[in-house]
Amino acid sequence: MLKITNLLKTIQNPNDLRELHRVQLPQVVNELRSFIVESVSKTGGHLSSNLGTVELAVALHYVFDTPNDRVVWDVGHQSYPHKILTGRRDQMSALRQYQGMSGFPKRSESPYDAFGTAHSSTSISAAVGMAEASLLQGEKRVAIAVIGDSAMTGGMAFEAMNHAGINRKLPLIVILNDNDMSISPAVGALNRYLARLISSPIYEVTKNSVGNMLSVFPPLREFAKRLEGHAKGMVVPATIFEEYGFNYIGPIDGHDLDSLIPTFRNIYKLALEGDGPQFIHVVTKKGKGYDFAEADPILYHGPGKFNPVTGITPSKPSSLKTFTQVFGDWLCDMARADQRLVGITPAMREGSGLVRFAQEFPERYFDVGIAEQHAVTFAAGLACEKVKPVLAIYSTFLQRGYDQVIHDVALQDLPVLFAIDRAGLVGADGATHAGNYDIAYLRCIPNMIVMTPSDENECRMMLSTGFYANHPCAVRYPRGSGGGALMSEGLDTLTIGKGLVRRNSTQTEKRIAILAFGTLLRPSLVVGEKLDLTVVDMRFVKPLDEELLSELLKTYDRFVTIEDGTVQGGAGSACLEYFVKQGKLPHVLQLGLPDEFIDQGEVPILMRDCGLDADGIEKSIRNTYLLN
Amino acid sequence: MLKITNLLKTIQNPNDLRELHRVQLPQVVNELRSFIVESVSKTGGHLSSNLGTVELAVALHYVFDTPNDRVVWDVGHQSYPHKILTGRRDQMSALRQYQGMSGFPKRSESPYDAFGTAHSSTSISAAVGMAEASLLQGEKRVAIAVIGDSAMTGGMAFEAMNHAGINRKLPLIVILNDNDMSISPAVGALNRYLARLISSPIYEVTKNSVGNMLSVFPPLREFAKRLEGHAKGMVVPATIFEEYGFNYIGPIDGHDLDSLIPTFRNIYKLALEGDGPQFIHVVTKKGKGYDFAEADPILYHGPGKFNPVTGITPSKPSSLKTFTQVFGDWLCDMARADQRLVGITPAMREGSGLVRFAQEFPERYFDVGIAEQHAVTFAAGLACEKVKPVLAIYSTFLQRGYDQVIHDVALQDLPVLFAIDRAGLVGADGATHAGNYDIAYLRCIPNMIVMTPSDENECRMMLSTGFYANHPCAVRYPRGSGGGALMSEGLDTLTIGKGLVRRNSTQTEKRIAILAFGTLLRPSLVVGEKLDLTVVDMRFVKPLDEELLSELLKTYDRFVTIEDGTVQGGAGSACLEYFVKQGKLPHVLQLGLPDEFIDQGEVPILMRDCGLDADGIEKSIRNTYLLN
Repeated sequence: MLKITNLLKTIQNPNDLRELHRVQLPQVVNELRSFIVESVSKTGGHLSSNLGTVELAVALHYVFDTPNDRVVWDVGHQSYPHKILTGRRDQMSALRQYQGMSGFPKRSESPYDAFGTAHSSTSISAAVGMAEASLLQGEKRVAIAVIGDSAMTGGMAFEAMNHAGINRKLPLIVILNDNDMSISPAVGALNRYLARLISSPIYEVTKNSVGNMLSVFPPLREFAKRLEGHAKGMVVPATIFEEYGFNYIGPIDGHDLDSLIPTFRNIYKLALEGDGPQFIHVVTKKGKGYDFAEADPILYHGPGKFNPVTGITPSKPSSLKTFTQVFGDWLCDMARADQRLVGITPAMREGSGLVRFAQEFPERYFDVGIAEQHAVTFAAGLACEKVKPVLAIYSTFLQRGYDQVIHDVALQDLPVLFAIDRAGLVGADGATHAGNYDIAYLRCIPNMIVMTPSDENECRMMLSTGFYANHPCAVRYPRGSGGGALMSEGLDTLTIGKGLVRRNSTQTEKRIAILAFGTLLRPSLVVGEKLDLTVVDMRFVKPLDEELLSELLKTYDRFVTIEDGTVQGGAGSACLEYFVKQGKLPHVLQLGLPDEFIDQGEVPILMRDCGLDADGIEKSIRNTYLLN
Repeated sequence: MLKITNLLKTIQNPNDLRELHRVQLPQVVNELRSFIVESVSKTGGHLSSNLGTVELAVALHYVFDTPNDRVVWDVGHQSYPHKILTGRRDQMSALRQYQGMSGFPKRSESPYDAFGTAHSSTSISAAVGMAEASLLQGEKRVAIAVIGDSAMTGGMAFEAMNHAGINRKLPLIVILNDNDMSISPAVGALNRYLARLISSPIYEVTKNSVGNMLSVFPPLREFAKRLEGHAKGMVVPATIFEEYGFNYIGPIDGHDLDSLIPTFRNIYKLALEGDGPQFIHVVTKKGKGYDFAEADPILYHGPGKFNPVTGITPSKPSSLKTFTQVFGDWLCDMARADQRLVGITPAMREGSGLVRFAQEFPERYFDVGIAEQHAVTFAAGLACEKVKPVLAIYSTFLQRGYDQVIHDVALQDLPVLFAIDRAGLVGADGATHAGNYDIAYLRCIPNMIVMTPSDENECRMMLSTGFYANHPCAVRYPRGSGGGALMSEGLDTLTIGKGLVRRNSTQTEKRIAILAFGTLLRPSLVVGEKLDLTVVDMRFVKPLDEELLSELLKTYDRFVTIEDGTVQGGAGSACLEYFVKQGKLPHVLQLGLPDEFIDQGEVPILMRDCGLDADGIEKSIRNTYLLN
């Protein structure tokens, strides 16, 4: 690898880049790539995707007039080269850290971040908005969406294409960054279609000759099409993107500056001159230029710290299982016990713990692509037929399928089990990925059963409970590991709607009961020991254990509710609703996540900030109930 | 028109239909069409779409082995012919009525309703689930999705296509019912593409000859393609649907049984024999066979009662404006006052009151198609550029863009104004369209301002307030009219987060205060007068008027919260959260919609059932607070 030289250091913003001579750009590319590997190896972060977009970022900022021209990076975990070129090289050392730089584009971070991203498939919609705005305002600029091939499978990308394609003046450029990969291997018909485009003879010709034929751009494919005139489509079939009203250019080699720069220059002109939406199909390689990552882009998708020379060494398996692993093990065990089970993931095989299930039960494993809406209704369709679907999904991504949960699953009372990972705060991904809202947005839906496991073993039992319950069920559990609860091997279930008193206060008056939902039971028990409080593992947000609450109301008038979700409308509020229904409100201290977006950082630190570690919980209880 | 004869009456279920001779089917079609016009003219309901699917329903049930083969009707408001043919002819007289038959397919209503629908674009996902299930279970049957051209623009339809297209054995049939219409005129690139397919010479040839060439099916286009063999796509360009891995057949005339039946028979065979997903492009005409409806399919989309002979006569404009009209008027007034305003609708120009705005400000009007996800993020993109987007959307459909509200709008604190129509119960459309959840699902989102107007004038002021607030704002108002509040003509705003005491109790102790959110203020005032209660128009769910509540807490310990949204996590719970935070423990009676799905019926009747009319409210207060 090349060492960092002074060239990259001289680039404080894209203007500096634009002042370089074309022949200097390969050096910038090399330095950038080395810098990313070294930097990410120290901080952890996304790697493969960023190595794939180095030339793209350089060419974009070299050709386009950023930030006047708007660039929207779909998903945004490929935006490090962009961040480095736009004045944030030094901040890479605090990437995704507490109070450091976000791992995603963020409007408050830089004027070059035209739109905050993180969830997939939003970029075209946002760019269409920006492009329409420039027309309305008479401003001469372009809006550019850079979107991966997997993000293109998300339905809203096609909704945006459908809308954009009718405006024949729209100064919009969509760059399809086709690397044949999402976090999991790409799936679906669109991906197969893109592969056909790339393997066509035209791409091969273009790829090999474009370097020598800059002066005769547009490239061969365009040339052939123009020759044909009105017979267009009869010789060279139109691409899907042309059918949607875009001018399609490509595929071109996304690591070849001599392809990218002249293509961008031509397209820039067309878009500015009112030729309408442009679609550039760029082929890149995830992990490009770093052998380890090229060889295993999934392993290097989002690594922790590693030695850049030796690569990632297998870390010792932690003695503590993550909740994701608990789910993955349960899924395989239950699949063996019940032939009806199928497992579904929207493109999160690794993240959701489905790797082993996919290997052992390939015919019952469905990766539907980045398509949460479809995932939910697909599960509903299966459930109509006595198949037992388990949909593994992150809390934040279930927001994408919210209407489908209500309209297709709950309204028909179909037995779909939602295994909701990454509930609560998620750490390095930050506010965009926060799973803070699921309790509030799920418990207002009729027919739903909502469970919050306090530890690994309860998680397993709740999954079995949900699997056998004949209703829509959600089990929501956090990222990372619990306390290492002893796991049962069986498939035991819990009684639906029943909590468990874990500790009884020895006091006889002015007693306080903590009603804990989920893994915050652990610090609650610590505090309970210290202050001699009663501690309840509530287990079910819905149905709430009203019998238990009713019993407690007889002798308690001071409660603490605690959950790792937003207080507004959360599980604590469910308790309040029950209490007032029974008559007078008791004292209730509601602990949970605050009504704000919380940036990235290590979860324990963030939880401390929110007052949800044992110390914070103790302090809140002391303050509220004037203990000592 | 033909009179109803005995033929339709003899059909109790599709088996009876299948026993008829082919030559009898045109009579069934005619009778069915007449029956629908007469029936809907008496009950009101969807008309144009159902007249367009008469032959389709007849041919489907004639050819396929329903209910063993699964038919999923996308959106479902075109399913009346299907309902009539599947044993529900007599129930048409109670269509969409209280305790009558649903206007949509409903699993609990009939085994022929394979999947409940109402929201757009779900059918392919559900059918893919059913088809995969049949493969897993080794059952020989097909799953059929019937989807309109406008519903195809909804992203999840493409998510489902992307997933389905890779399973080369999937016994799935997608029937595109291409009528060039959604409720509003169809928009978008896909629609234009379909029009090109239809206008191609191949369709003309097929259309004119298929009747005479049944024996040489597959039709010409297929024939041409097969001739070409491996050169496929080079002579006849492949359609988008073929690129997605479907076998494409069409376009065929959807009113010609001699095209439909042999095509369905062939496709049935292919699908059952493992030839994989089939896509049939059928062209129909909304309102077909009823001149009035053919001439104005939008007017006849969902009429009330009318005289079938003379057609719809313009009803006298009600003296009361609907909230929809209040919004539409405000939008035009504000657009004139502020050049930055743009109006956005996901294919609901008429329903959302945007007709006049679209005429007067065409360049600032955006109908994005049935594409709620895109609509929200498109608005976010505009808001980044100092444009002021107003997104008019039904409460139930905003569920489709929920993630985008959180991730793209609220997280970036972008000033998008959501004008949320059809909040609360909606009447004839029933549970699928209920706007019960918006308060709960919006108030848990940081940065959101959530307003609930109690009358028309307040609605107008809140829209202005939201427009000028520099944050994401939602104004949610119900279907229908308010009480006829005197309207100001101006664009006055309200103070954000401030409620208004509308009536003060004259009592000095044990006083009760009603905290009303939204239009239930009216019955609350009636009850307030009768029982001498204090009545507060809370106006803002978020931010809550904590100052006012704090003041009330000094002298009140009995409250009633009331809202036309779900109690679970609703506005009343926001009050509870505040009360316990203050350490105050008043009695609170929470009134609102119950935790269940509520079927269709007139809103006043349904509200009475929920105890939310003045009588019910009075009774609840008396019971709870032991008055008299």
